[in-house]
Amino acid sequence: MASNKVSLPVINRLPRYYRYVCELEEQGVRKVSSSQLADIMGSTPSQVRQDFNCFGGFGQQGVGYSVSLLKEELGKLLFTPEKLRAVLIGVGNLGVALTNFIYYENLGVDLLALFDKDTALIGKHLRDLEIMDIRTLNEFCDTNPIDIVIMCTPKEAAEDLAENIIRTGAKGIWNFSHFDFSLYTDKLICENVHIKDSILSLSYRLAHPEEE
Amino acid sequence: MASNKVSLPVINRLPRYYRYVCELEEQGVRKVSSSQLADIMGSTPSQVRQDFNCFGGFGQQGVGYSVSLLKEELGKLLFTPEKLRAVLIGVGNLGVALTNFIYYENLGVDLLALFDKDTALIGKHLRDLEIMDIRTLNEFCDTNPIDIVIMCTPKEAAEDLAENIIRTGAKGIWNFSHFDFSLYTDKLICENVHIKDSILSLSYRLAHPEEE
Repeated sequence: MASNKVSLPVINRLPRYYRYVCELEEQGVRKVSSSQLADIMGSTPSQVRQDFNCFGGFGQQGVGYSVSLLKEELGKLLFTPEKLRAVLIGVGNLGVALTNFIYYENLGVDLLALFDKDTALIGKHLRDLEIMDIRTLNEFCDTNPIDIVIMCTPKEAAEDLAENIIRTGAKGIWNFSHFDFSLYTDKLICENVHIKDSILSLSYRLAHPEEE
Repeated sequence: MASNKVSLPVINRLPRYYRYVCELEEQGVRKVSSSQLADIMGSTPSQVRQDFNCFGGFGQQGVGYSVSLLKEELGKLLFTPEKLRAVLIGVGNLGVALTNFIYYENLGVDLLALFDKDTALIGKHLRDLEIMDIRTLNEFCDTNPIDIVIMCTPKEAAEDLAENIIRTGAKGIWNFSHFDFSLYTDKLICENVHIKDSILSLSYRLAHPEEE
């Protein structure tokens, strides 16, 4: 559908559009204008139209966008036809929270296995998955091809595992470890999650309430 | 320092600038140009200069920015002089992960108390904090003024607690609950964290590798 390269900021706005459109649908709203979407996104109507034009425009201007069409088209862009086959590494509290999140929410992820290096955890079960020894990661992925690695270890452990992760053949990494895998390889598409960024934004906004 | 209102997208870029500048300093880099920063941020040199001009510019153009000055000035913007006094609600896996994160990382947060409604958790300890009964939240905050609430409950529980949270007198909320508090009140500055957005961005990028 898109003929030109779509920039990363546009891609990163797609899930937010999708989220808002789902909420509008839940509220029974059928049509939404680019100005209404701009208000919700904190951008401008022209920015909204520009973003949507990267993907063919999503319907006629002037009469507003159809909420159900928008939800369908954005959903097609964001969810792959098959779920992403994933392994999760690092079954600490964050790893457990994400595992539960994947089970409860439709993230488009099929979690195949959990790995840790802690012998106290190996062999235990979480949901219907056994926690496996991290040393068997490559063996497992040789017989079970995966799309992504979900990285929930501390930074140092992630660095130690970088070569193994590249060897899994995963195409992407959902990375909570704060280790920058792009320094090691350009073969992995990295989505780095920095939870700290959001608390610092909040801290700035609390110190500058006049700007709200 | 800033005379005009700074837009939310600019504010949200500040923690990323700060993170990159800290990394550059660790690597021993002393000067950085707006083009180098633009490369790291995936934006343009003119965008970087525009962003920095909201806060006085951060030094001379042409010779590059001083990494240490940039770190200091961004740090002053992002960290309040006193730590943010916080309570955390919902001590499930995500709540525990965040509590540990606050203890290990310098987030500028002083965690005063943990609350849950689960009687199996109430009275237990995490770090040096006792998990308290959520029904004592307002009583606690009446004698211990707080700046922010860290919300780690499911969406429904967050909705049920909305009135109590407003009554705490908190000025902001670091919100992982997916409940939109702005529907209830305009008195709280809300930083909503949607972890799902990042996996959907990754999913899109994996399906469109030609755009990388």
